[in-house]
Amino acid sequence: MEAIKPYKKGAAYSYTLGAFPTYELIAGKKENITGVYIHSQYTDAEKIRNTCKENNIPVLKDDKLFSKVSDKENCYVIGVFDKYEDTLNSDASHIVLVNPSNMGNLGTILRTALGLGIKDMAIITPCADIFNPKVIRASMGALFKMRVQLFSSFEEYRKLNKKQEVFTFMLNGENTLEIQNCPKVELFSLVFGNEATGLDDSYLTAGTSVCIPQSPEVDSLNITIAVGIGTFLFTHV
Amino acid sequence: MEAIKPYKKGAAYSYTLGAFPTYELIAGKKENITGVYIHSQYTDAEKIRNTCKENNIPVLKDDKLFSKVSDKENCYVIGVFDKYEDTLNSDASHIVLVNPSNMGNLGTILRTALGLGIKDMAIITPCADIFNPKVIRASMGALFKMRVQLFSSFEEYRKLNKKQEVFTFMLNGENTLEIQNCPKVELFSLVFGNEATGLDDSYLTAGTSVCIPQSPEVDSLNITIAVGIGTFLFTHV
Repeated sequence: MEAIKPYKKGAAYSYTLGAFPTYELIAGKKENITGVYIHSQYTDAEKIRNTCKENNIPVLKDDKLFSKVSDKENCYVIGVFDKYEDTLNSDASHIVLVNPSNMGNLGTILRTALGLGIKDMAIITPCADIFNPKVIRASMGALFKMRVQLFSSFEEYRKLNKKQEVFTFMLNGENTLEIQNCPKVELFSLVFGNEATGLDDSYLTAGTSVCIPQSPEVDSLNITIAVGIGTFLFTHV
Repeated sequence: MEAIKPYKKGAAYSYTLGAFPTYELIAGKKENITGVYIHSQYTDAEKIRNTCKENNIPVLKDDKLFSKVSDKENCYVIGVFDKYEDTLNSDASHIVLVNPSNMGNLGTILRTALGLGIKDMAIITPCADIFNPKVIRASMGALFKMRVQLFSSFEEYRKLNKKQEVFTFMLNGENTLEIQNCPKVELFSLVFGNEATGLDDSYLTAGTSVCIPQSPEVDSLNITIAVGIGTFLFTHV
């Protein structure tokens, strides 16, 4: 295997930076892994080496690589994997992100969704690159335990996923979402817009539009917080 | 007024980067402002100039300053202010952050708290510098509309704030926090730990310990998400 290069969006492979997301990669997508680099100064090398052996994953050495691809000093493990495509489970509830642009937010939302039990996420393009190591790091490797599928439009998503009841989260949503009135539905799609622009008004009629009550003293809640609160309500009501 | 320098923790002043947080600074803490820099290429200069005039705030010009103190290209307004100390309203509900260390998280939590109607935040030191421009930017200026008070220990906080019922958020909390069992209390303190280490076990007996239900597939929810969900439940139940 040739040495990996600093990440590029068009590359056929990407990588995890750090032991934690690499273990998640092995747990979730081991068939896609081409190798794991372990730094010679890593104190817990035996454990990851054994895990790689059990899973027939090549262990590689190239200490110089670490400073080339990671800006964090405490990165001692890198997992290299071929990019892949997922297909959503059309019989599950989904989160739908329309044009998410910030990599840190996207990773945090992945981690939040998995933490709240939602394993299927649709993303409407254009969007931040889900395989960028920054997204993976912010997700703490949650990406590898979920099904994330890209669609060129919301309509394309809906063509293939018709069973879910759609709820669009909008500052001008018609229904204020309270604990007391949160709908109890078996299969739902919770739709959230871009960090800066939100969802455009066409989404007012794409399903039931809802608004998380918030103080007029702020412009809006951060998108990651809106996803957290909205998803918690729909999964626990 | 002498020209400002790149931010240092020990400085007696700090600044907002961008028009939005500067308007929030003027709205919330105008008595602390020593001046507002407006870039000569700012397209909406008249509006902020008028706002400064109405509030007797000096308007300053120094285009070279912008690249020195901001790494964002779209920063055209800088508000300079003297640091200040707040005192919590002891008759209100509070959020208490124990040793928050990440500046982006701290800012996001401030914005979330204000958005959910909590205006008083206690922070137990050591902690990230609340006046760092990165915290202010992540808070979208929410800092200036809240009362944020530092304490050297949780005990010191409690000495001065005894009316609140305390709830500590811990992964090993004794009570799973569900919509159906979330306590309805008039005055509460919601206590959250450091991003990496959480709250130590002494907090199990500092009040009622609670745990937000989450999938074993993630290490934990991000601290900002935990604050968002916890605060939403306590303010809306």
